[in-house]
Amino acid sequence: MTLAIDFDDIERAAQRLSGVAHRTPVMRSRQADEMSGATVFFKCENFQRMGAFKFRGAYNALSQFTAAQRKGGAIAFSSGNHAQAVALSARLLDMPAVIVMPQDAPQSKLDATRQYLQSLPRSEVLLFDRYTQDREALCRRVAAERGMTMIPPYDHPHVIAGQGTSALELIQEVGALDALLVCVGGGGLIAGCAVAAKHLLPGIAVHGVEPEAGNDVQQSLQRGEIVHIDTPRTIADGAQTQACGQLTFPIVQALVKGVHTVSDAQLVATMRFFAARMKMVVEPTGCLAAAALLEGAIDLRGQRVGVILSGGNVDLVRYAALLHDAR
Amino acid sequence: MTLAIDFDDIERAAQRLSGVAHRTPVMRSRQADEMSGATVFFKCENFQRMGAFKFRGAYNALSQFTAAQRKGGAIAFSSGNHAQAVALSARLLDMPAVIVMPQDAPQSKLDATRQYLQSLPRSEVLLFDRYTQDREALCRRVAAERGMTMIPPYDHPHVIAGQGTSALELIQEVGALDALLVCVGGGGLIAGCAVAAKHLLPGIAVHGVEPEAGNDVQQSLQRGEIVHIDTPRTIADGAQTQACGQLTFPIVQALVKGVHTVSDAQLVATMRFFAARMKMVVEPTGCLAAAALLEGAIDLRGQRVGVILSGGNVDLVRYAALLHDAR
Repeated sequence: MTLAIDFDDIERAAQRLSGVAHRTPVMRSRQADEMSGATVFFKCENFQRMGAFKFRGAYNALSQFTAAQRKGGAIAFSSGNHAQAVALSARLLDMPAVIVMPQDAPQSKLDATRQYLQSLPRSEVLLFDRYTQDREALCRRVAAERGMTMIPPYDHPHVIAGQGTSALELIQEVGALDALLVCVGGGGLIAGCAVAAKHLLPGIAVHGVEPEAGNDVQQSLQRGEIVHIDTPRTIADGAQTQACGQLTFPIVQALVKGVHTVSDAQLVATMRFFAARMKMVVEPTGCLAAAALLEGAIDLRGQRVGVILSGGNVDLVRYAALLHDAR
Repeated sequence: MTLAIDFDDIERAAQRLSGVAHRTPVMRSRQADEMSGATVFFKCENFQRMGAFKFRGAYNALSQFTAAQRKGGAIAFSSGNHAQAVALSARLLDMPAVIVMPQDAPQSKLDATRQYLQSLPRSEVLLFDRYTQDREALCRRVAAERGMTMIPPYDHPHVIAGQGTSALELIQEVGALDALLVCVGGGGLIAGCAVAAKHLLPGIAVHGVEPEAGNDVQQSLQRGEIVHIDTPRTIADGAQTQACGQLTFPIVQALVKGVHTVSDAQLVATMRFFAARMKMVVEPTGCLAAAALLEGAIDLRGQRVGVILSGGNVDLVRYAALLHDAR
């Protein structure tokens, strides 16, 4: 079976992102090495533009629009990082964008998204009522009416290829790795990273990490088909997906060694570790991969391990409460 | 008048620190540029080993001990970052260390310092009662009894030279700057950074930033002599010094253009900015220089500005409270 992207797609995405996305730093920590027994390299996508890896995929997709598509602009539905990623990419490429968000989305996310769209023509945040309105139908209608191109958060080849540039940069910087740990929501990040990593280092073991409460990809791998679950209750809001994507799942099946899970308590402990020891704000979803290693869900003693920290966007009041309660 | 150090001392310190101290990243932020109207480069000493620039000076000092001094070890009094800096440096250089700390120091700082001293021979944290005991007399007695060399937190040429490597690295990485903003406690960091910066870029304007409640260096510059003040009440605990040093003050007089002040409320706003926008934990003292620029205490519009973020060590519960209350 042919996968949705190959390594060339990631290299071309890296060229498009060069000078636009941040080449995020790789951070090390003696404590992390001691806790895990491994040599750990953290790829810090929390320092990416708009605060998460999502910018890579969104910009890679929008920058490949035809002239006609650019004129119409982009539409996306998201209450999370994908919203800001598409809004910022549209602003940088000077095209209209509509972001469809639930009307009860956190004010900070609404504000941040609106700020990116400011002064862009025919651009706005469209609110919908998640209890009475069909989000996808609303998107399709607006897209058709306004001639906009919809960019999904993960199940799109350009999005997957963009996300893969994160692993590409990590391996370019640190060289050989025995293992790579990546969080799993819809599978866009891990699919892109797995294609990059397995091409550059065929012997590498790529592991996914999901929240305990929402292990749909773990179940899907066991069953050999995409399993749908109810929206999981977890603080890892970026991994509250109900199912892996049609394009991402075959890549995960082909290239990922296994998927592990961590609890919300382990995520909070890891968030606290990053603040206290590494002086970094990492959002709950961004802690998934690190938590598996630092909290013992996976044993990679003696190995050189890359860990993708996917993002740092967390409401400060919520963040403060999580840090405080974790005493 | 001859200053305590010159640029050669900083270059030699950089050689000693090479491969031992982290070459900390320089971070940029579009929002910081927009808020200040300047092009801002943040030198992130919060990502330095043990979480602050203090490691540079302490390691530079301890690594120059004679064989006899190494055998005796180092002693320091500090309840803050200097304690951990000396403890970690002693550990790396495998020499004994005694750190004298007030018995009511935060548990997290006691624990961190003890952890660094673990398994070092003849090393310990010595507690004193700050209401009944004379800290300096205790230090002198222990130093004499055990043959230890006392390393002060700022008023020592090797300490000053070590701190200067931070500005050296910044300028090596980003090139020409019009201005450099540095926090001021006892003056070790700004003295070292001013010597480095004025040597490399003679036209640069070096500005110091103190807490509003403790502007002893500002007063000292006005009077032309070192002014002593009562311990100031400020959340910037690393700048609660009562007076500038005998070695640092002449350097500040000779090379620093001016000293500005910011309020605790401005420090909290800046701490919040770093967490929300740049995903970094910066301690209150570490926010001083940035607060002056971002909160408008100094206008450097149109200029290329370096800002030293001095550290990230803040008790998480206190940090959470400050983030939360700043709503």
